[in-house]
Amino acid sequence: MAELKIYKIGGGIIDDDTHLSDFLQDFSQIRSKKILIHGGGKGASALLKKLGIEPKMIDGRRITDKPTLDVVTALYAGLLNKKIVSLLQKYDENAIGLSGADGNLIQAVQRPVKEIDYGFVGDVEKKNINISLLDLLLKNGYTPVLCAITHDKNGQLLNTNADTIASTVAEAAADFYDTELHFCFDKIGVLRDINDENSLIPRINHSDYETLKVEKIVADGMIPKLDNAFRVICSGVKKVVLEHASNINNDTKTIITD
Amino acid sequence: MAELKIYKIGGGIIDDDTHLSDFLQDFSQIRSKKILIHGGGKGASALLKKLGIEPKMIDGRRITDKPTLDVVTALYAGLLNKKIVSLLQKYDENAIGLSGADGNLIQAVQRPVKEIDYGFVGDVEKKNINISLLDLLLKNGYTPVLCAITHDKNGQLLNTNADTIASTVAEAAADFYDTELHFCFDKIGVLRDINDENSLIPRINHSDYETLKVEKIVADGMIPKLDNAFRVICSGVKKVVLEHASNINNDTKTIITD
Repeated sequence: MAELKIYKIGGGIIDDDTHLSDFLQDFSQIRSKKILIHGGGKGASALLKKLGIEPKMIDGRRITDKPTLDVVTALYAGLLNKKIVSLLQKYDENAIGLSGADGNLIQAVQRPVKEIDYGFVGDVEKKNINISLLDLLLKNGYTPVLCAITHDKNGQLLNTNADTIASTVAEAAADFYDTELHFCFDKIGVLRDINDENSLIPRINHSDYETLKVEKIVADGMIPKLDNAFRVICSGVKKVVLEHASNINNDTKTIITD
Repeated sequence: MAELKIYKIGGGIIDDDTHLSDFLQDFSQIRSKKILIHGGGKGASALLKKLGIEPKMIDGRRITDKPTLDVVTALYAGLLNKKIVSLLQKYDENAIGLSGADGNLIQAVQRPVKEIDYGFVGDVEKKNINISLLDLLLKNGYTPVLCAITHDKNGQLLNTNADTIASTVAEAAADFYDTELHFCFDKIGVLRDINDENSLIPRINHSDYETLKVEKIVADGMIPKLDNAFRVICSGVKKVVLEHASNINNDTKTIITD
């Protein structure tokens, strides 16, 4: 199987023009087939406030009412996605920006209302990724750039978590490609001591992870990230990488394998 | 050669949710390969004003400074394009929304400053349309939906007239497809008497047009539309159709041929 590298970037890179441009130049130098998935950054909350709409968050998750959906669709699928695509084009990467509605790439289900009504938020499953479209583009030299807007195939756009999209696309791709999933975030990887960058753990497999949890070396915010990484690996993804966006072309990173 | 129908829609349809939805349902019932190109409608000026930016127009053309470019990119490539795509998906049309930056589909040149500085406005030429991407998508059952945002391949997005994009894409496609170009506007076609819808002229060829001009039956706003139609036909497009968006699946229209 051919190699496929999927990168997810979020707010820390997206909100800084210089970091974003540097990252995209580094990304364009990766030689294998690849997909970029981007979150939204802080722009949405700022624009909502400018328009007199108070952003609503519960446990760090955005409540997406109709005006909020319009703003995030405009920003994520429009301004941000096209900015990234045009910069990649500058670096001779033949990027093509897509939302989940385009080519029915990611069909989602609006999250049912339980304790919290998240509004127009979509949940996605591996079986609803149109991998044949991604495959068509990749085989013809295009690099898909996905924003975190999906749809329900009934005319409704939906806001979806970008980490979830990255994981689900990686799971779907793993049946056809040797797939790596790279999460670029604000740390250089998993650290033994969160205050010491020299304590990077370069590789973690499943049994290492059990030990690290018992020893309470990984805790808090890192556990959901690692749980997700091992779930994705169970679905056939070869490796998950946690790294800083400025390090994608060097060895400073944590590689997670089975 | 296979048949390709290119439709251009503008403000009159885009600004009215019911009209837009009805048009898209009709569009989805056309059986040949097709491309949809959309303008921006009135939303951009309204949103600019909400954000405290005064829209600037000269002779009906928007002056696109940096804040205006951000707003039109967000609206045209984001909100509007994805709304259209998600509605087409609802009607089982496998639409895929693209700007000119995506897959380097439409590379433009920023308009040089002469008497007027239009700002970030792009001019396009037939040779800079990536027809191989459109062909790849069409051959695989996807219907491209293009917004009027282009790029200069150097990281700069540009605002471009949607009629110009439609004409230029049609000219580029005409080398590979039997191409029809349909302009949907606020009239049912070319009328002998602008106040009488029963005076529709169903067909106009080049010699008819010369006569109509001499007789002063066509004048004013219709002359640039017809001049453009004959220019496009000279480049190999089989026919240009002027019609109301509600009539695309009946015979009420003006068909322009060589």
